[in-house]
Amino acid sequence: MKTKTLGELAEHVGGKVVGDPNIVITAAATLEDARGGEISFLANPKYRKHLKSTKASAVVVKQVSASNSALLVVDDPYYAFTQIVILMYGHRRHKPMGLNANASIASTANIGEKTDVHEFAVIADHVQVGRRCVIYPGVYIGEGSVIGDDCILYPNVVVYDGCQIGNRVIMHANATIGEDGFGFATHKGTHHKIPHIGQVVVEDDVEIGASAAIERGTFSNTVIGEGTKIGDSVVVGHGTVIGPHCLFVPQVGIAGSTTIGSHCVAAGQVGISGHIKIGNRVTMGAQSGVISNLADDSVVFGTPAFNFADAKRALLALRTLPELQKKIAVLEAKLSKKETKT
Amino acid sequence: MKTKTLGELAEHVGGKVVGDPNIVITAAATLEDARGGEISFLANPKYRKHLKSTKASAVVVKQVSASNSALLVVDDPYYAFTQIVILMYGHRRHKPMGLNANASIASTANIGEKTDVHEFAVIADHVQVGRRCVIYPGVYIGEGSVIGDDCILYPNVVVYDGCQIGNRVIMHANATIGEDGFGFATHKGTHHKIPHIGQVVVEDDVEIGASAAIERGTFSNTVIGEGTKIGDSVVVGHGTVIGPHCLFVPQVGIAGSTTIGSHCVAAGQVGISGHIKIGNRVTMGAQSGVISNLADDSVVFGTPAFNFADAKRALLALRTLPELQKKIAVLEAKLSKKETKT
Amino acid sequence: MKTKTLGELAEHVGGKVVGDPNIVITAAATLEDARGGEISFLANPKYRKHLKSTKASAVVVKQVSASNSALLVVDDPYYAFTQIVILMYGHRRHKPMGLNANASIASTANIGEKTDVHEFAVIADHVQVGRRCVIYPGVYIGEGSVIGDDCILYPNVVVYDGCQIGNRVIMHANATIGEDGFGFATHKGTHHKIPHIGQVVVEDDVEIGASAAIERGTFSNTVIGEGTKIGDSVVVGHGTVIGPHCLFVPQVGIAGSTTIGSHCVAAGQVGISGHIKIGNRVTMGAQSGVISNLADDSVVFGTPAFNFADAKRALLALRTLPELQKKIAVLEAKLSKKETKT
Repeated sequence: MKTKTLGELAEHVGGKVVGDPNIVITAAATLEDARGGEISFLANPKYRKHLKSTKASAVVVKQVSASNSALLVVDDPYYAFTQIVILMYGHRRHKPMGLNANASIASTANIGEKTDVHEFAVIADHVQVGRRCVIYPGVYIGEGSVIGDDCILYPNVVVYDGCQIGNRVIMHANATIGEDGFGFATHKGTHHKIPHIGQVVVEDDVEIGASAAIERGTFSNTVIGEGTKIGDSVVVGHGTVIGPHCLFVPQVGIAGSTTIGSHCVAAGQVGISGHIKIGNRVTMGAQSGVISNLADDSVVFGTPAFNFADAKRALLALRTLPELQKKIAVLEAKLSKKETKT
Repeated sequence: MKTKTLGELAEHVGGKVVGDPNIVITAAATLEDARGGEISFLANPKYRKHLKSTKASAVVVKQVSASNSALLVVDDPYYAFTQIVILMYGHRRHKPMGLNANASIASTANIGEKTDVHEFAVIADHVQVGRRCVIYPGVYIGEGSVIGDDCILYPNVVVYDGCQIGNRVIMHANATIGEDGFGFATHKGTHHKIPHIGQVVVEDDVEIGASAAIERGTFSNTVIGEGTKIGDSVVVGHGTVIGPHCLFVPQVGIAGSTTIGSHCVAAGQVGISGHIKIGNRVTMGAQSGVISNLADDSVVFGTPAFNFADAKRALLALRTLPELQKKIAVLEAKLSKKETKT
Repeated sequence: MKTKTLGELAEHVGGKVVGDPNIVITAAATLEDARGGEISFLANPKYRKHLKSTKASAVVVKQVSASNSALLVVDDPYYAFTQIVILMYGHRRHKPMGLNANASIASTANIGEKTDVHEFAVIADHVQVGRRCVIYPGVYIGEGSVIGDDCILYPNVVVYDGCQIGNRVIMHANATIGEDGFGFATHKGTHHKIPHIGQVVVEDDVEIGASAAIERGTFSNTVIGEGTKIGDSVVVGHGTVIGPHCLFVPQVGIAGSTTIGSHCVAAGQVGISGHIKIGNRVTMGAQSGVISNLADDSVVFGTPAFNFADAKRALLALRTLPELQKKIAVLEAKLSKKETKT
């Protein structure tokens, strides 16, 4: 880890110092945990109250506020803080390994320069792995799959045969790419397996979480668009196409043959039906069940999902329902009494 | 891949050609993706519109419709198409391997003829594996477990000790069979682990998805019935018995000691409580929470799940609830005014 | 397995025999499955009806009831039965292995006495593993991680670098500890990975389910408190702190930076938002969506979760909503008619 002065950090992120630029910053931490010499950030307004009590020597903020700490003022505090953390700590460093003698690499496989293949990894026939990749122990890459440059496959990741993985893709431990989809032809009560002749295409800069599972397409490919991030235990169904720069938070499930645009966000445990079309910049609240097409810029919630604000209002109103039942009974009784009278 | 004439395919599936039976079919694809020389199918009415625009040379259909493509008319188009895909493409072929020198096979284990065990797979003491199985790299089969004939265990599947796996069972990467169930005796605030003396029985023709987890029984066995298909990331609790020919879609969770009949379908993310009894041919809509017994042929939705049509109507009606609150307030005001008047 | 007399078992658990203490008990089973010579238990009142029909020779109960079986009366039948099962069957026994020649153990790693490391496990640089641990095949322990005494890591568990695991921790197959959290700084539509400089701390006596995933902290540690049990496919977000003696049932998802007290229970598929605070002894019903702070001893249900009894009443009332809509329309029509008249 490198120490930096606050002034150096400000220069690195293009921000403005309020306070002493010569403070030496030794570590990064949250507002609550930071101690003297450390830098923190304020991005979520919920934590504004900590700005006064934090022991951080400096805080990255969007707006100048009363604080005992020096401030580093930028337009996008979390992004600037991310740049600072990268500068000071760097990303995970991987032990140089070369092609470990205990890895099993097919003679027909093609491994790029400076790629590390750890012990007990298996690289099958006709696989291509690009340059500067890290293939951790226990990884399996199936026949004919292609992995780009600068990818990291953490331990026990499994990539089935014939998948196409872009550059700078990160796959976390125990993730599975390209397993057969949940596709069966049910005939007279028996489910017949259909060969999945489609593949999985993972574009550049995608990150895939631990124990996530991306099914291969039945006929056409399953696609994860450039820069999209997939959380732990997410399941993507066969033939689904996810556009670029989406965020699919852990435990989201997407059925097959659905098309999703760019910059969509699905919060935790969202379920998305198959054979639908979701536009660009759509936001789906946690646990929503999305069962029909959604236009660009939709913000939805609930099951079946609809407009977020209305859904939230309706779900909160639900709490009053037993009381409404009673009110209606009272109204009916009163009115019926009136009718009897008249 | 084999090419076939449309006439040959019709004969293979017992269907009738409308158009030229001599067309040579070179590939299978969806209606949208198919190009000249390719065959497609129409099973989901939602895609009927593509029948006119598709470039497929032939389409498998149930009924004759206007189309530029030749038609192959059958009773069950998706099943027929599946048979065609199997004929033309076959299922995944596995590299002949024998017993790889880098696999670890206990001397007390018994491996059937023509079974392949890949590198870094571990087969513990007293395991029996049948004939013509494929045990991929990184698979672990625990002491005394029995695997039938013609099974495929994809990379990094873990089968704990003492499990019974039938014939033609497929387990996808990173699936776990027979881990201890989530069973603890809570006494004075501490959770005490109970040994799980039950096992897992997986019957013939079951397929289990990536990262799925089937807990072993606490006292009695967990059972997955013949022909049942379990999706990715499904969790089946200890001692639960699932009947034959069910479909449990990805991310479904079933608690322990529940009994489920035959031909049931649980859509994505359904949760099923423990200690209940679900009949035969029950369908559970996506994300439903099933907390009580269900009779044969039930179709349910929602949490707690009830009759599908009613549940869907109620969930849609929920959207009007804030408006209903207002209407009731208006009615109350009017009636109270009337009361004052009279 | 050891056989015992009913009297010996009663002495072991501090209970009272009603019937013949000399009965020889040969096995443990559920009330429904038990045969002569076997012992069972009654803890869930739902199964009381089986007390008369069971073929068990003895049943562990809280209260004396009419039964053909001998009874073993104790305060906490399930806990007593657990002790009996442990006495008779013991926990899983692990094959003594030592440090297998086909494991890959860094020369800088430190492995305690009587710890077994199975084939194809990888222990990276500067790892410390305590005494009497079992490290199954395919396990990966990343650089600098510390594992306490008497831990069991089942096949293909992955522990990333720098994690702290206590004593007597059990991790089931394919679980992942310490992967990078789902944390990205989104800037001009692109998601930038933030290095996760926090770690995962798993305290003593924790058990973690198959395919569970515990993200490392972004800045501060993710913590799983002493004695807490985590089910299969549970995901715990970065920086979340879970207190001691909680139960998180399979498929629960917890976002990041949330703090949870002691003795909390989250039933299947519960989702918990990030950046909230949940008190002690909180119970969350299955599939609940918890989006705000919860006080000690809360019992909640639904999405958004609120008081359990009210939530259940409201969710059941939901079924009457379409009928209420009609009633209100009738009331409105009647009242409008009256208004016209007057």
